[in-house]
Amino acid sequence: MEKLAMEQRLTIIALGVNDLQVSNTFYEKVFGWKKLDSSNENITFFQLNGILLSLYPRDKLAEDAEVSAEGSGFKGFSLAYNTRSEEEVDDLIDTLEAKGANIVKRPQKVFWGGYSSYIADPNGHLWEIAFNPYLPLDSDGNV
Amino acid sequence: MEKLAMEQRLTIIALGVNDLQVSNTFYEKVFGWKKLDSSNENITFFQLNGILLSLYPRDKLAEDAEVSAEGSGFKGFSLAYNTRSEEEVDDLIDTLEAKGANIVKRPQKVFWGGYSSYIADPNGHLWEIAFNPYLPLDSDGNV
Repeated sequence: MEKLAMEQRLTIIALGVNDLQVSNTFYEKVFGWKKLDSSNENITFFQLNGILLSLYPRDKLAEDAEVSAEGSGFKGFSLAYNTRSEEEVDDLIDTLEAKGANIVKRPQKVFWGGYSSYIADPNGHLWEIAFNPYLPLDSDGNV
Repeated sequence: MEKLAMEQRLTIIALGVNDLQVSNTFYEKVFGWKKLDSSNENITFFQLNGILLSLYPRDKLAEDAEVSAEGSGFKGFSLAYNTRSEEEVDDLIDTLEAKGANIVKRPQKVFWGGYSSYIADPNGHLWEIAFNPYLPLDSDGNV
């Protein structure tokens, strides 16, 4: 029998949070994103391009996976939001900073030919805000 | 002046890895995914549904964000791959296990009405393999 293939796709990125309301406020007020109606007092969903971003209490996320919630320091991953120009990186970082975002790395030219910056959400999840001239986005923002 | 809006989308998920070849082998042989030609000996890219997954050395990922690479334990996030049926969860976990994947949580019915399991990649990044009857996917696997 043909083995079932794992399609090359993703459905949800779940971010563990210490305080759901604090994180909701960050993604709604600083990023300006709108929650899905399926969100409730225990979990928040944002519809992104073909995937969902969910915010869920960190200890419950560990419990759901049946792993220990013990952990600290660098999380070993980052999420990237690519813009369509270098200027858009500067403008977006200005806007995010004015709204209180923690700027981790100021926009700068980087070795691979792009223009990159990093911010951290209230739980230290890293978002790279970058322009990559070699990675075109379609009108919906898809790669 | 109108403030620049941050569109509700994501471009790249970057996973920090300890050994790029080991992780390449996992995603190529166990998941069965194909790298993009733009991958090289320093970084690997997989085209997913509208976004990219990249594999990058963990210390370099921290360096890129100008944060300390110190960190251990639970990473505080997970990635979910949703199937179109409960049976598909069982079949996929069987296939992944036969190929050597580390099964963290066996498929089981869960409190929110779904059917869920977890595996870990070689660096402990958690992938939930789940069926959610309330979250329909289109033919491309998008939410």
